[in-house]
Amino acid sequence: MLKVIINGCLGKMGKVLTRCVQEDEDLKLVCGVSQNPINNGSFDIYPKMNDINEGADVIIDFSHHSTLNDVLTFAIKTKTPLVIATTGYNEDELNKIKEASKIIPIFHSSNMSLGVNVLLKLVKEATKMLNNFDIEVIEKHHNKKVDAPSGTAIMIANAAKDVLPNVEYNYGRYGRKAKRSENEIGIHAIRGGTIVGEHDVIYAGHDEVVELKHIAQSKDIFAKGSITAAKYLVNQIPGYYNMDNMLS
Amino acid sequence: MLKVIINGCLGKMGKVLTRCVQEDEDLKLVCGVSQNPINNGSFDIYPKMNDINEGADVIIDFSHHSTLNDVLTFAIKTKTPLVIATTGYNEDELNKIKEASKIIPIFHSSNMSLGVNVLLKLVKEATKMLNNFDIEVIEKHHNKKVDAPSGTAIMIANAAKDVLPNVEYNYGRYGRKAKRSENEIGIHAIRGGTIVGEHDVIYAGHDEVVELKHIAQSKDIFAKGSITAAKYLVNQIPGYYNMDNMLS
Amino acid sequence: MLKVIINGCLGKMGKVLTRCVQEDEDLKLVCGVSQNPINNGSFDIYPKMNDINEGADVIIDFSHHSTLNDVLTFAIKTKTPLVIATTGYNEDELNKIKEASKIIPIFHSSNMSLGVNVLLKLVKEATKMLNNFDIEVIEKHHNKKVDAPSGTAIMIANAAKDVLPNVEYNYGRYGRKAKRSENEIGIHAIRGGTIVGEHDVIYAGHDEVVELKHIAQSKDIFAKGSITAAKYLVNQIPGYYNMDNMLS
Amino acid sequence: MLKVIINGCLGKMGKVLTRCVQEDEDLKLVCGVSQNPINNGSFDIYPKMNDINEGADVIIDFSHHSTLNDVLTFAIKTKTPLVIATTGYNEDELNKIKEASKIIPIFHSSNMSLGVNVLLKLVKEATKMLNNFDIEVIEKHHNKKVDAPSGTAIMIANAAKDVLPNVEYNYGRYGRKAKRSENEIGIHAIRGGTIVGEHDVIYAGHDEVVELKHIAQSKDIFAKGSITAAKYLVNQIPGYYNMDNMLS
Repeated sequence: MLKVIINGCLGKMGKVLTRCVQEDEDLKLVCGVSQNPINNGSFDIYPKMNDINEGADVIIDFSHHSTLNDVLTFAIKTKTPLVIATTGYNEDELNKIKEASKIIPIFHSSNMSLGVNVLLKLVKEATKMLNNFDIEVIEKHHNKKVDAPSGTAIMIANAAKDVLPNVEYNYGRYGRKAKRSENEIGIHAIRGGTIVGEHDVIYAGHDEVVELKHIAQSKDIFAKGSITAAKYLVNQIPGYYNMDNMLS
Repeated sequence: MLKVIINGCLGKMGKVLTRCVQEDEDLKLVCGVSQNPINNGSFDIYPKMNDINEGADVIIDFSHHSTLNDVLTFAIKTKTPLVIATTGYNEDELNKIKEASKIIPIFHSSNMSLGVNVLLKLVKEATKMLNNFDIEVIEKHHNKKVDAPSGTAIMIANAAKDVLPNVEYNYGRYGRKAKRSENEIGIHAIRGGTIVGEHDVIYAGHDEVVELKHIAQSKDIFAKGSITAAKYLVNQIPGYYNMDNMLS
Repeated sequence: MLKVIINGCLGKMGKVLTRCVQEDEDLKLVCGVSQNPINNGSFDIYPKMNDINEGADVIIDFSHHSTLNDVLTFAIKTKTPLVIATTGYNEDELNKIKEASKIIPIFHSSNMSLGVNVLLKLVKEATKMLNNFDIEVIEKHHNKKVDAPSGTAIMIANAAKDVLPNVEYNYGRYGRKAKRSENEIGIHAIRGGTIVGEHDVIYAGHDEVVELKHIAQSKDIFAKGSITAAKYLVNQIPGYYNMDNMLS
Repeated sequence: MLKVIINGCLGKMGKVLTRCVQEDEDLKLVCGVSQNPINNGSFDIYPKMNDINEGADVIIDFSHHSTLNDVLTFAIKTKTPLVIATTGYNEDELNKIKEASKIIPIFHSSNMSLGVNVLLKLVKEATKMLNNFDIEVIEKHHNKKVDAPSGTAIMIANAAKDVLPNVEYNYGRYGRKAKRSENEIGIHAIRGGTIVGEHDVIYAGHDEVVELKHIAQSKDIFAKGSITAAKYLVNQIPGYYNMDNMLS
């Protein structure tokens, strides 16, 4: 049974992660850390990493980039593998993460969904093999989403562009002369209701279509992905790991 | 066995219709009409309707609007029901069709696909019942298509707008502030390979989505639809009929 | 602002309904009823309907069939419209509901999802219009679901069978001689992960396919549907109402 | 411009291939071979490979296993690369193909669709990465298809089974106790209309689904795939090649 510490346990994702850790039979939640700890009875919550006086097998961090020093200091001091799912680090902070990974195993990814990362890998493979097919990306999200297209849709298109550098993105066709150019990836942002998130990549060739799709049902997938990463990380030697390492 | 005359039998759709009529066990192709008739051995082709000296149960017209007088004159003279799938008529010609329909049964539609017309009817029904759901239309066509979105996608959106007159169309979302407005129908034109034609209407509400979709595999659907119309028409009294009549 | 009483407010669906009522700006939760009431601070919970001494505009019942007498007595006494989403009534109880509906408006449905009911209505329409197309039903649910196919899939197939009484159901094709018969509806139960519920009806004809689909993202849809029913019901005269009435 | 000889040019697939070769700007059809040659004017058709007195850059064989000796003898004699799309070879014949591939480059595959082969490769990748997700295969074909499931669906399931040897196939769930077992791949055969062929692989995990899909619009994909193979093969040294080689 892996003992887990959650940094940022009372944030939006922290709460989801807490529930997922508690539901996982292979895991035991040791304690959490939150700037404004509230005693909820079922486990200890400390205001700072440094206040923790219990050991753990792995730390999962879904907090704020400003707590980086705290969590790195604690993880190095206690030689605990660290999964970082927090985003928004500047270059200086990213360097500190890489430095620390020389001493302890660190898994770092800004998108912890296993499925999305699998999709990205498959897109690279498919784009190589179907390099003369037309590629289009369709994403669907709820009607409250402000930006379009989604960051993940851009990641997908970029994964294809890594293979086919000449492609250009088209965010919406309209008009009497709107014929598709050969080196185009159409990216389409569908919005409606409470759709959590779907990403669909279409490869259309002569009389056949290959389609790769990811459907998210809840934010749990980011928590679950970080748990999968944690289980992977505890068996690694010190180093800097990401989804690519884990999935290959 | 219904005896059929095809006006415009050597045009693109005329050839498809000829094949479909010949393959249909309930039908017998009497003869065809084409401005530049070529003897192909399997059935007679006349240059003008007036040259025909055989009777038939129904005429199907996939020709050119300029042959309207010819076909109406022949149909009235021989009291033969007439299915008109030709497009491009001006108001004067449309009036002539309506006049003729007082004497013989005439079926007239600019889109003979049974499935597309069913979709249009279902869209009206669904929009009434799900009037506070978000509607989005996604259409897919081959990479040679010049216009975007497709005429059928516009017909679908218009069918929804008939029920919800305040909706406005959005042909592509892009940017950091691209939030969906409440009275919006997003219309998305996917292009790739040799896709014949797909139309997908999404009704997204709170935690549920209803989707209505039509997939075309070939131009046969327009020929088949006109045949279905012909079989329907031969049992009608004189009048002006369209898909709405047939489908209700 | 409609004042609502929830009978069965602490059951699985009752809790979902409570949250949805509290989130709805048009509604005010007056109180709830539960056999084992727990004071949760935000609203009063009574052990029996009869204990309530506040008035409301509508009662929504997601409880147990055994509490029917209580809720009917209270609703009649206070002349309050009643939405019944509870299942499992015997014939005697169903008669009592119908009797009561002579005095107060009662809305009664065993599936409160708006989307599923819309799908059922569209299936009837589509089956009439596409009566020589092949119909197949595909449903997807989570891997813990015990029965196959889902009750909703059966409802869908039955809606088609109402129109085409000769159809028979086929629950899985296998073998070297497994050709589809003409009067067959294939019903396919896909199971995996935590899929909440999808139902897909396919009408396949010559070179075209029409597809009608419902996707559920959570149990909220049953609560939301009962709220929609409640808003509809408060404007009706005494009578027995169901989804068919509301949707037409 | 590659010069091509087609063995079996008047068979079902041979005719499709002939048209695709003639439409391809990079290819020139030298001649065809057919047991019952009919002079069609546009190119020479010989009764036997041995009758050909013209050179070519590549031979594509969509014929009958019984003509293997002829085509191998000719290909070796003229040192012409050979693409074999014919099926039904016995072990002895397969050995002859392998022997010949020591002298000339031979590409051999029983499914020439590029898209299907890409799907198979992606399924292997995805199954490795999503090894604790539930896998289901859904295929759709026209209502005349006799066997269920399709051979391609079996190939897909086998590709997953190569990675997860313990999985067992379930061809249709039905009943009140039909819960999915953990090591199960559900395979579902949808039949209707004139659907050419669709294969959909679903990976369902906790709150996310990854889907890989192939849609065929016509038999052209097998011809096109063999042409792609031919273009690949002419740049290879003698050896035995298949889709795996070409796609990696």
